[in-house]
Amino acid sequence: MTERYGEPSVGDVADWWRTSVTRIAPGVVEHRGVPVQDLIGHTDLVSAAWLLVRGDRPTPGQARLLEAALVGSMDHGPQAPSIAVARMAATCGIGINNAMASAVNTLGDSHGGAGEQCVELLAEVVAAGGAPAAREVVAAWRERSPYLPGFGHRFHPRDPRRDPLLALVARACDAGDVAGEHLAAALAVEDALAEGRPRPVPMNIDGATAVIYAELGFPPPLARGFFVLSRSIGILAHAWEESGSGRRNKGPMPPSILPSYGDRP
Amino acid sequence: MTERYGEPSVGDVADWWRTSVTRIAPGVVEHRGVPVQDLIGHTDLVSAAWLLVRGDRPTPGQARLLEAALVGSMDHGPQAPSIAVARMAATCGIGINNAMASAVNTLGDSHGGAGEQCVELLAEVVAAGGAPAAREVVAAWRERSPYLPGFGHRFHPRDPRRDPLLALVARACDAGDVAGEHLAAALAVEDALAEGRPRPVPMNIDGATAVIYAELGFPPPLARGFFVLSRSIGILAHAWEESGSGRRNKGPMPPSILPSYGDRP
Amino acid sequence: MTERYGEPSVGDVADWWRTSVTRIAPGVVEHRGVPVQDLIGHTDLVSAAWLLVRGDRPTPGQARLLEAALVGSMDHGPQAPSIAVARMAATCGIGINNAMASAVNTLGDSHGGAGEQCVELLAEVVAAGGAPAAREVVAAWRERSPYLPGFGHRFHPRDPRRDPLLALVARACDAGDVAGEHLAAALAVEDALAEGRPRPVPMNIDGATAVIYAELGFPPPLARGFFVLSRSIGILAHAWEESGSGRRNKGPMPPSILPSYGDRP
Amino acid sequence: MTERYGEPSVGDVADWWRTSVTRIAPGVVEHRGVPVQDLIGHTDLVSAAWLLVRGDRPTPGQARLLEAALVGSMDHGPQAPSIAVARMAATCGIGINNAMASAVNTLGDSHGGAGEQCVELLAEVVAAGGAPAAREVVAAWRERSPYLPGFGHRFHPRDPRRDPLLALVARACDAGDVAGEHLAAALAVEDALAEGRPRPVPMNIDGATAVIYAELGFPPPLARGFFVLSRSIGILAHAWEESGSGRRNKGPMPPSILPSYGDRP
Repeated sequence: MTERYGEPSVGDVADWWRTSVTRIAPGVVEHRGVPVQDLIGHTDLVSAAWLLVRGDRPTPGQARLLEAALVGSMDHGPQAPSIAVARMAATCGIGINNAMASAVNTLGDSHGGAGEQCVELLAEVVAAGGAPAAREVVAAWRERSPYLPGFGHRFHPRDPRRDPLLALVARACDAGDVAGEHLAAALAVEDALAEGRPRPVPMNIDGATAVIYAELGFPPPLARGFFVLSRSIGILAHAWEESGSGRRNKGPMPPSILPSYGDRP
Repeated sequence: MTERYGEPSVGDVADWWRTSVTRIAPGVVEHRGVPVQDLIGHTDLVSAAWLLVRGDRPTPGQARLLEAALVGSMDHGPQAPSIAVARMAATCGIGINNAMASAVNTLGDSHGGAGEQCVELLAEVVAAGGAPAAREVVAAWRERSPYLPGFGHRFHPRDPRRDPLLALVARACDAGDVAGEHLAAALAVEDALAEGRPRPVPMNIDGATAVIYAELGFPPPLARGFFVLSRSIGILAHAWEESGSGRRNKGPMPPSILPSYGDRP
Repeated sequence: MTERYGEPSVGDVADWWRTSVTRIAPGVVEHRGVPVQDLIGHTDLVSAAWLLVRGDRPTPGQARLLEAALVGSMDHGPQAPSIAVARMAATCGIGINNAMASAVNTLGDSHGGAGEQCVELLAEVVAAGGAPAAREVVAAWRERSPYLPGFGHRFHPRDPRRDPLLALVARACDAGDVAGEHLAAALAVEDALAEGRPRPVPMNIDGATAVIYAELGFPPPLARGFFVLSRSIGILAHAWEESGSGRRNKGPMPPSILPSYGDRP
Repeated sequence: MTERYGEPSVGDVADWWRTSVTRIAPGVVEHRGVPVQDLIGHTDLVSAAWLLVRGDRPTPGQARLLEAALVGSMDHGPQAPSIAVARMAATCGIGINNAMASAVNTLGDSHGGAGEQCVELLAEVVAAGGAPAAREVVAAWRERSPYLPGFGHRFHPRDPRRDPLLALVARACDAGDVAGEHLAAALAVEDALAEGRPRPVPMNIDGATAVIYAELGFPPPLARGFFVLSRSIGILAHAWEESGSGRRNKGPMPPSILPSYGDRP
């Protein structure tokens, strides 16, 4: 060590790892200032997660909305790369946490980021004046990418999770739990997308949950963070199911099928 | 492909990915036979996770117990390698899902496996006849490893999460939600460990949650799986907090301190 | 902090991260005591990796053997879960390092551990007296597991990588680069396995490289470590190829095929 | 499955996994059209990796340059988050591949991406006319970010890896192995950065290796890909060293130091 680095102290080391999330002392675990024993048995998991991540407490209505988003995003089956990864990994002789990690790792910008991006989209619509600005904002996004995050689904003409989630948001608006601006923005985007098309392009699960995250005031990256928590449940369910199959080193198709070889014709 | 592999069909491929967790069809998402719209807004997250992973529904009392275990295990701060990893990873220019995956990946046999192993230990005590067999089973485990999973804590003389969790289990026994055999086994292990020592070796968070997982009938690997779900909340909270620090490529100590060089003296 | 933890110093922190691998100082990077500039342009990658991991230098003949093992293990195509994972992950909107990590993560006890286990098997044969003990050691392993690591291949009647690798080992024995005990042990295991069968059960890539790792004196976990380095090359090649495909969120089969639903019939 | 998805065939499934990297058939493993037995013992690891990833063969001079880049990037010690992660992960009861994966996963845009970004920077300078355009291109990059990838080092006034790597590139230019345009661009960037400063801002390891990757015609993401291969060696060395320490669940600092609690003052 040379002078140019100053003279660090043990306090500097402790500060390097400073956190407001959790304090420990012998016999003490506090989350955001709340002793853990005041949470255990007294707080539901969703409200506890909100506290840990955000530092404050949700109202019951807010917690119900967040819970609905988390329940709605748990799984969409093995066609999703994350789930296929979880199942294959579970047969490779690694821990269930490792199989889950390999899968969570694939929830990237295109596989797990649509909700996060849709929160940004909705924020942009709201910032631009709300529903009347939807068409313009959509046009700007469309110029940058062929994918409008949160709208339309490769598989579902109408995502079965859209309506129940939006109904809950609408009810929460009526109850005063959330303001409804982002819901209005999202519906206006749907309208803008439907113009001149034979069929609507309804919100998908990422869009409907983005409405919730946005209404609850979560910054965009936390939309992905909470989606990861939710999808981790499906990942666990599939990893566990596959680990009961007795397969070893499961590949992506039955071993009797060999991959084609050579450049695409 | 050669004859020795038979002639696979597209149905074989579909079967290769067979699952009982989730069924999708256009407009349909069903988890374990339940349409997702019947879960959204109607089921709490913990019960929904139970359904997805196990295929059946918990009673309200069972769900409360599982929820308490999940709330109690969320975080223990940055001294845990998983949390330190989450925080460092969050400064490296990767997605929040990737930071979470790096951290979840460290919840291995020694960092995340104590709950799983303690479920095995308790099952062994119960199988051997319950409380009276505790001393003998403990002795056998002690021969294999210096660590008895779920008991004692490097930092807490008495883990503050032990008492509230065990109190909930005791209450659930009284209510008939669980049978109490594994709770009795765990208390007997505590007694066996205290013999001849000046201080008790009380259950830690892994032990207390293992009692819950065991009472609820979860196979040992799912104790780790659910712990991963719970700790993922803390991992998210820390990754998110650190990502707001403005640091890039955070190392394990202030950059002014250099690692010692050379073999340990 | 309380007295029971003593009074740590900054030196304790530096010691906590003590290493003999690399020393840095302003203007200085030394690996195992060798300035990095004496390696760059002067040492081949395989010898440099040996130095970094083991702390000493290989002879040219030893380096050639290790290089052959690494060249031989690079890839076996997308039927391997690691490669399928790499390709799917590469389409999910994550960095190429993240795609590689998801794949490396699946090289567990059954997918990436056969070489490591085979090094243990060969060491056991050598310790039991060498070739004459092979039959007995094999019998003992067979009792514990239906898989004998390093021998036989699901797909190749005779793994095309066996003969060239073993020929190199034999030549290295003749040259005095290695002692040949583990090669003899492995050939004796092959003989023991062939007894009473219509067809031989020849070494596969894991067995042939295990002979090399064992002859070179690597402890078993490093056989897995070096295999990871080698397979990372294939993982990179496949991740990169797939990232040029234009696919997003590639699942395990064409989206027109849905996974079967329900328990196996 | 419904008509809207057409009728897939087994051939479609095989095509879904089409690759030009490796072909397998019983008794056959071919990489890029080359039987693996023609590589084992005949090709060095660096040339084999080039073949697998790019599909063609390097000249000996090109392979030497790539090798130097790989040797130069192996490790910079435990202050790098990736190395700290590898060491902590190795104590958590997971496989060495899992420890390596957690670490590789942190080589993201800011920790592992500088080489990739510097290749882009150099390509931009070359496309803008070469050395004379350096000042302008640098100014444009500076507007977007405070970090100019590949130049300057937090720790080394002059990175000891710069000179030997650039000397090799210069020699390769003289020998006609590479054209030298990107080397000229990088030196011009150095000059532009030095203007009006008391001290130069020399290329660091990422810049010097970026010159090599760019001269060799690698697209930017492969600069990261090859960096991952190189750093994986250091990751393995540190994971292995730490796994011999006997520690369990190593945190980021001695357990006697607790993280500070609360918001930064």
